[in-house]
Amino acid sequence: MSAPFIHDNFLLENKYAEELYHDFSKNQPIIDYHNHLSPQYIAEDKIFENITQVWINGDHYKWRAMRTLGIKEQFITGNATDKDKFLQWAKTVPYTMRNPLFHWTHLELARYFDIHELLNEKTAEKIYEESSAKIASKEYSTQNLLKKVNASFVCTTEDPIDTLEHHQFLTKNPFETKVSTAFRPDKAILILNDGYNAYMNSLGEAAGISIDSYADLCVALEKRIDYFDQNGCKLCDHGLDQIYFESFTEVEVNRIFRKKKENVSITTEEAFKFQSAILLFLSETYHKYGWVQQFHLGALRNNNERMHRILGPDTGWDSIGDYPQALKLSRFLNALDSQDKLTKTIIYNLNPADNEVMATMIGNFNDGSVKGKVQFGSGWWFLDQKDGMTKQLNALSNMGLISCFIGMLTDSRSFLSFPRHEYFRRILCNLLGDEIKRGELPPDMEWIGKMVSDISYHNAKEYFNL
Amino acid sequence: MSAPFIHDNFLLENKYAEELYHDFSKNQPIIDYHNHLSPQYIAEDKIFENITQVWINGDHYKWRAMRTLGIKEQFITGNATDKDKFLQWAKTVPYTMRNPLFHWTHLELARYFDIHELLNEKTAEKIYEESSAKIASKEYSTQNLLKKVNASFVCTTEDPIDTLEHHQFLTKNPFETKVSTAFRPDKAILILNDGYNAYMNSLGEAAGISIDSYADLCVALEKRIDYFDQNGCKLCDHGLDQIYFESFTEVEVNRIFRKKKENVSITTEEAFKFQSAILLFLSETYHKYGWVQQFHLGALRNNNERMHRILGPDTGWDSIGDYPQALKLSRFLNALDSQDKLTKTIIYNLNPADNEVMATMIGNFNDGSVKGKVQFGSGWWFLDQKDGMTKQLNALSNMGLISCFIGMLTDSRSFLSFPRHEYFRRILCNLLGDEIKRGELPPDMEWIGKMVSDISYHNAKEYFNL
Amino acid sequence: MSAPFIHDNFLLENKYAEELYHDFSKNQPIIDYHNHLSPQYIAEDKIFENITQVWINGDHYKWRAMRTLGIKEQFITGNATDKDKFLQWAKTVPYTMRNPLFHWTHLELARYFDIHELLNEKTAEKIYEESSAKIASKEYSTQNLLKKVNASFVCTTEDPIDTLEHHQFLTKNPFETKVSTAFRPDKAILILNDGYNAYMNSLGEAAGISIDSYADLCVALEKRIDYFDQNGCKLCDHGLDQIYFESFTEVEVNRIFRKKKENVSITTEEAFKFQSAILLFLSETYHKYGWVQQFHLGALRNNNERMHRILGPDTGWDSIGDYPQALKLSRFLNALDSQDKLTKTIIYNLNPADNEVMATMIGNFNDGSVKGKVQFGSGWWFLDQKDGMTKQLNALSNMGLISCFIGMLTDSRSFLSFPRHEYFRRILCNLLGDEIKRGELPPDMEWIGKMVSDISYHNAKEYFNL
Repeated sequence: MSAPFIHDNFLLENKYAEELYHDFSKNQPIIDYHNHLSPQYIAEDKIFENITQVWINGDHYKWRAMRTLGIKEQFITGNATDKDKFLQWAKTVPYTMRNPLFHWTHLELARYFDIHELLNEKTAEKIYEESSAKIASKEYSTQNLLKKVNASFVCTTEDPIDTLEHHQFLTKNPFETKVSTAFRPDKAILILNDGYNAYMNSLGEAAGISIDSYADLCVALEKRIDYFDQNGCKLCDHGLDQIYFESFTEVEVNRIFRKKKENVSITTEEAFKFQSAILLFLSETYHKYGWVQQFHLGALRNNNERMHRILGPDTGWDSIGDYPQALKLSRFLNALDSQDKLTKTIIYNLNPADNEVMATMIGNFNDGSVKGKVQFGSGWWFLDQKDGMTKQLNALSNMGLISCFIGMLTDSRSFLSFPRHEYFRRILCNLLGDEIKRGELPPDMEWIGKMVSDISYHNAKEYFNL
Repeated sequence: MSAPFIHDNFLLENKYAEELYHDFSKNQPIIDYHNHLSPQYIAEDKIFENITQVWINGDHYKWRAMRTLGIKEQFITGNATDKDKFLQWAKTVPYTMRNPLFHWTHLELARYFDIHELLNEKTAEKIYEESSAKIASKEYSTQNLLKKVNASFVCTTEDPIDTLEHHQFLTKNPFETKVSTAFRPDKAILILNDGYNAYMNSLGEAAGISIDSYADLCVALEKRIDYFDQNGCKLCDHGLDQIYFESFTEVEVNRIFRKKKENVSITTEEAFKFQSAILLFLSETYHKYGWVQQFHLGALRNNNERMHRILGPDTGWDSIGDYPQALKLSRFLNALDSQDKLTKTIIYNLNPADNEVMATMIGNFNDGSVKGKVQFGSGWWFLDQKDGMTKQLNALSNMGLISCFIGMLTDSRSFLSFPRHEYFRRILCNLLGDEIKRGELPPDMEWIGKMVSDISYHNAKEYFNL
Repeated sequence: MSAPFIHDNFLLENKYAEELYHDFSKNQPIIDYHNHLSPQYIAEDKIFENITQVWINGDHYKWRAMRTLGIKEQFITGNATDKDKFLQWAKTVPYTMRNPLFHWTHLELARYFDIHELLNEKTAEKIYEESSAKIASKEYSTQNLLKKVNASFVCTTEDPIDTLEHHQFLTKNPFETKVSTAFRPDKAILILNDGYNAYMNSLGEAAGISIDSYADLCVALEKRIDYFDQNGCKLCDHGLDQIYFESFTEVEVNRIFRKKKENVSITTEEAFKFQSAILLFLSETYHKYGWVQQFHLGALRNNNERMHRILGPDTGWDSIGDYPQALKLSRFLNALDSQDKLTKTIIYNLNPADNEVMATMIGNFNDGSVKGKVQFGSGWWFLDQKDGMTKQLNALSNMGLISCFIGMLTDSRSFLSFPRHEYFRRILCNLLGDEIKRGELPPDMEWIGKMVSDISYHNAKEYFNL
């Protein structure tokens, strides 16, 4: 019998790479400092009924692949049975060769289910039954899934109006994995959105005030930041096409807010002014609370209105934008830094053409005050694959210090995505092992090994004070 | 004697790559679904007088290289003899090392002429005589050249005013290679061009109407689309710096058209409005006819006015632009999709910095209705080389499904360019073979081989209903 | 004892690469046609007191790395002792793995000081003493440092107001390395700068006229160009975010100049008009004098105002911009070319996403008049590392002729940076050796070797008429 596709030295192409991975990385706990897991499911210690529910439902990566192959929506998000959906996915898998889905699929089957066959039409039935039987058992509850991968810390992402009840429950009922939250106020920023005013009402309720002015909005947001902070939150996140940094006055911003409130249409310029103000206010507040701030920049979202109407956001109709990023981002960080209000910051870009802009931008504000204070975040979403991660690692190495990098996160909605940490670590170790072999790095395994363990675990632990 | 430079396993670096190429790709017929061959030459079954006429005349790739080396225009497009032009080109060839011209040159000499020496000053005379003797024989007529490379289908590119007489002749007098046409209405779109009004007159004549309004223009274009369709056309193409998608009203657009007609100068904003309207109209019409639409985006053309005045367009003075591409392209495709009028679409970008934008854009409109409905086109023009093709294949693989890719086309004006298909296939097979060897793909030669034959031939055959 | 990290075949991965480097490149003299060395230090034949003074002071590459690691400014640009600064740098070096600093550091220690240990906390003390003892000796005077690396020509960079006294001294007191100057008039162009009017006074003094109008400014600049030319200058340089090419009239431009003179605030649009005018004037003048012009495009400078206020420019707070580059650059070169006033030109871009724009732009103006007339400059600043240089070499090869490339320059402020030429040459030879081994280039060592020696030395010698 031939070796399984996912074997011990998968992606490790020489002895140095193997040594780095097995001796310095593999056994490090996972700090997954940014993801979109359901805190409710963790608190409930939910057990899924079958593999489709945890693996295909909600996974727009798989959905896009299936649609490209010409599979009907019925078998993707529609009313087909869970088993039929799985069979259609299984049929798709061989066609995903060279896409990260192909590696993720087999890594996840191997690591969670000890299944080492390749998934395809022939093996679909058997793998469906085998994996579903396992997933439906207590051993595969959400908490057990997190323990199984040695996750010491995971951080989910919540809206400011969230009650954090599930996080509170988990604080009172802890298990081996510490679960925290990150504050994501996109809905309070993006004033051009249709539901903005309704959202203001919800936010006001959550904050216990009536939001009738820009000043009220700031009060409400700070109250929620305070609430999140009291509940152990130390991190926030923003998903923006680009950083807004227009000049504004408080009076202007308030007038724009009032116009929106009264359903008077506002211009893009007005929106950008407003967004610049609120973003600056938020970042100043994060600094006050000593949080880490994250910016995920560069997505072009909801491109397909027809499907967006039917399925809603985050269902596979987003792509990569090509916005100018450098100037506004620089001015924004500078405005904070000038007042000594720049908190620790992680910047992620979605367009790899911006890698070098980002890798050099962070150096402008790394001023010696904190090791790796401003970070160039790991390859994300469409870039969360070997090429994307390698390019990010190379840009960061060439233009900054990879040794100070806080490493990988899943950014995932799935409880089965944690082998992406293993994937990242193997790629990192192989990159270094290759350079040692070629004489571009000295064969100092102790030192390079320390760097590997730092990037795998210790840097993030130190950065987030865990 | 040492092995020839172009040998059986050129570019194939391991056994897997060799097996994939020789067993699954090499013998597939060629579908060259987009090029700029002369249909007249094909219809006439033209025989060229010497190698210069078919190989150097009209080939702006070679011209640019010669000019960079400091060779005078006399020996490029001037009045030097065909032989002297060849000798100057031969002298240039060694200086093209690492440029695709170096590989193309020797592939073409090997495949068409069975010449395996390297071309340079020393071999120039001999190769000129040997290749010219062959090219001047019946065996090297245009139709025989197409047969020699096993081209089952070629699609040339014509202006809407074209009579298609040569295609009609070829329909009545078929040979082994099916020859079709693609509709390319750039001259009807680019209203800022000097010759626009004169072109409107020609278009009106061809359509049998007088074009006095924007509505007339639409009627004329649809008549020509219908005419092309009746003559077997199923494909169109656009060469644009970027997609135009400005808001417009029919009244505005007609006013702009009238201003142009009356030689009143129009602004860039007006031109963009007009171009947005006509482009949308055309795409809706292509959908009605069930055509495939192609967009070649991102060239910066005619940069050198002095040389453009002397030599005209397409003589080697074009380069790569850096226009924003994502937003307008998304809005344009969405506008069509929202009305269910988005036909099969192939998008090519000239700036490789846009690869990831394109590779993810197609996924926004691949909705399960047709396998690979929206395609990210193969590396084109300046990107038609190993690096460019590899980057396109990687972006497509990482962010979409390479398995659904319709593959290579020459986009060439030369009857000797078809080995570029071989070049592409070898690169594809080597990429896959390398990943099999490194364990990133399973050694399932049957499956990967099927993917190779799909990308080499079957996907295009299915996509174009051939 | 194991082999030293920097050994004879460092970066050379096969026999072809080794042969190319050792037989065709290594012994070529160095033409460093663009750097920021101090002509005063060369004229004085200065001897440095210790290694920190020549190696760490003034080196913002090292400073950025130290700050990222969290080292306090006191040990970087502050009042710590030279030895303590060195110890902090030594501690940083292992953390620079994969950054070019790691290779540069050990290449420089090996080549200048015959030190082959890795620099780190353990070896710091010993290496500080050993290198400082050497650097403080006559054998390590600035002129001897240049001779040690076989530099036949170096070209420093001066402001138009410079007296060139040190260059004059060196002309009268020559040594083995010829030292020339390049004219860099950024301060006369960037009219939005605070010190612009004061600079106009200095420039007027240097030119012996009072600058009260735009016409006066042109006269003053031409006088200084003439002065530089008389002092042997044949080269200029511009550091700009992007090329300016707005329409303007002499009247408008003069009005803008007068506004600035009278401290009336001017708009960005006005500044761009003014900058377009002055840039065009300068380039026309360079053509008249037969100079080579250089453009370093794409930096985003002085991002951190707080640190800029404390430390001034060029202290490590700059990064990569993402400006549109193609259109204006094309129009600008065309405006010169149309009047037959385009002199030899070298274009450098800082954002690698623009590589292909640049690599194709040069072909628009390489018209056969001069071999390699318009050059795509070598990887620069943040791109001055293996990846950056490789990408530049690949883009140039794929879209132009690498055979005509004038190769490497240090662009450095440090007298110890010349091994970057060796670094470049090894990378070049390895790239070619790898392709020979893989059969992508023929194993014609004589020919490829000639190309290597051309790119290492002869092309630059010919291009600059040395």
